[in-house]
Amino acid sequence: MMGADEKGYFTEGNSVEVVTGRNAGAKDERLKEVMDVITRKLHEAVKELEPTQEEWMQAILFLTRTGQMCNEWRQEFILLSDVLGVSMLVDAINNRKPSGASESTVLGPFHVADAPELPMGANICLDSKGEDMVIEGRILDTEGKPIANAVIDVWQANDEGFYDVQQKGIQPDFNLRGIFRTGPNGHYWFRAVKPKYYPIPDDGPVGQLLGHLGRHPYRPAHLHYIISADGFETLTTHIFDPDDPYIHSDAVFGVKKSLLAKFNRVNDPGRAKRYEFAGDFWEVAHNFVLARSRT
Amino acid sequence: MMGADEKGYFTEGNSVEVVTGRNAGAKDERLKEVMDVITRKLHEAVKELEPTQEEWMQAILFLTRTGQMCNEWRQEFILLSDVLGVSMLVDAINNRKPSGASESTVLGPFHVADAPELPMGANICLDSKGEDMVIEGRILDTEGKPIANAVIDVWQANDEGFYDVQQKGIQPDFNLRGIFRTGPNGHYWFRAVKPKYYPIPDDGPVGQLLGHLGRHPYRPAHLHYIISADGFETLTTHIFDPDDPYIHSDAVFGVKKSLLAKFNRVNDPGRAKRYEFAGDFWEVAHNFVLARSRT
Repeated sequence: MMGADEKGYFTEGNSVEVVTGRNAGAKDERLKEVMDVITRKLHEAVKELEPTQEEWMQAILFLTRTGQMCNEWRQEFILLSDVLGVSMLVDAINNRKPSGASESTVLGPFHVADAPELPMGANICLDSKGEDMVIEGRILDTEGKPIANAVIDVWQANDEGFYDVQQKGIQPDFNLRGIFRTGPNGHYWFRAVKPKYYPIPDDGPVGQLLGHLGRHPYRPAHLHYIISADGFETLTTHIFDPDDPYIHSDAVFGVKKSLLAKFNRVNDPGRAKRYEFAGDFWEVAHNFVLARSRT
Repeated sequence: MMGADEKGYFTEGNSVEVVTGRNAGAKDERLKEVMDVITRKLHEAVKELEPTQEEWMQAILFLTRTGQMCNEWRQEFILLSDVLGVSMLVDAINNRKPSGASESTVLGPFHVADAPELPMGANICLDSKGEDMVIEGRILDTEGKPIANAVIDVWQANDEGFYDVQQKGIQPDFNLRGIFRTGPNGHYWFRAVKPKYYPIPDDGPVGQLLGHLGRHPYRPAHLHYIISADGFETLTTHIFDPDDPYIHSDAVFGVKKSLLAKFNRVNDPGRAKRYEFAGDFWEVAHNFVLARSRT
């Protein structure tokens, strides 16, 4: 038995046990587990780094500035999670796929819920800006069979690296967005323009941190997909241009080898004419494999 | 040699190495070390907890609310650091004392820089509210010799648990604050009122977190001291009332056994008269031992 004087006063040695011991009365077991782990890892970090009081205050002020940068249109803590690889790690943990299924990557902040459903083959580029591109492939199950009635929600940045929602009044509404639905053969195709790399918003504390770390803020060119079908797990992913200058240094770590899709330059006046393209165009072929729902 | 396709794409397995590998170009070696450790501990926490996407978003929104609660008068991230024991851990790491020296504890947010210097024995209670108290002791070096010209900066909450700066217009300016200077015998004494326990500000996200964890927001009654003298390390500390109901559960973990100072109730009309007290009073005796400067 400990006397009253020895009861649980905080020391460097017992700091984790004393702090987490206070959570014994938590009603939510999961919250208790979360705070136990976060407290333990935070104390481990402090004990390893031995920050000065000034460094501790710098950390407090960095977190404060990060919170105060957030508004209806800007989520600086998500950016921080992104550039520290936490967002991709949470994505990976929640999307462990069976062998053969397409891999996921981060959703990103530029999806909109109400993009229009378009006929297969439609051109999602509404302002004729950028280099023409045609994209096609099939939606398959893990046995290689086509999935009919798969819904493909696609969105991308334009040739200057901006999404429509970042350039309201400059780009048409729903520019470079569309929803397509597969037929019995599981095939999809649509027309668009070649996307370009772009920086994540870097005029806030996260951008400053990247600068101090000697890191650039760019994401390599990509198209976003959310693919869903009855009986299958919804897939949120990108395809990336493997020839992009930032393909090996995505600021948010979203690239996976299986998500590389060759962007081929095509000189074929006959095909260009059929696609209503003025000249040379880019061609991308990429299949997606959906995992069956686990329940 | 790895081919370009195998180069450093992020996986659950290599997540720490991929993210910290990006910091190779950091100009500031300490920042690089800090971010390496924080990234590693964050990823360890995520891998241990396996948060859902919804839990991740809850964490993002908690941090955002915490940042947005901060203003000129309120620092919610310091409160978060306090209730997770991080502030006390940083204090402990930065104030490892030689054997026999008094221990430190957190500064807290209520110190003011320009309190008045008062003659020894002055009453720092300016509004006659609360139960009278007299405090005395000596400032000593680790050999037990008195330190002359030690400067004692003291401040405390009133009998309702509020500091003057929290009740501007209600309490007089500089109520329950003062600076004293020791003479050759190292002795100090002053008059005040018995302090009371009080809650840390609990109307924000940190208070909500404490509520969900089944924790109360109270700090046990204490007096704050900053004691400085030429040739000695400055000591920032408290003394605590060991009979306080929250003495074993300080919301910010500031209590140490060596900082307990018995608050004795005294019935002695002769002494009361000398102190200009109306009746019974409280008496506290506590010596402080300063460590010699390391340089």
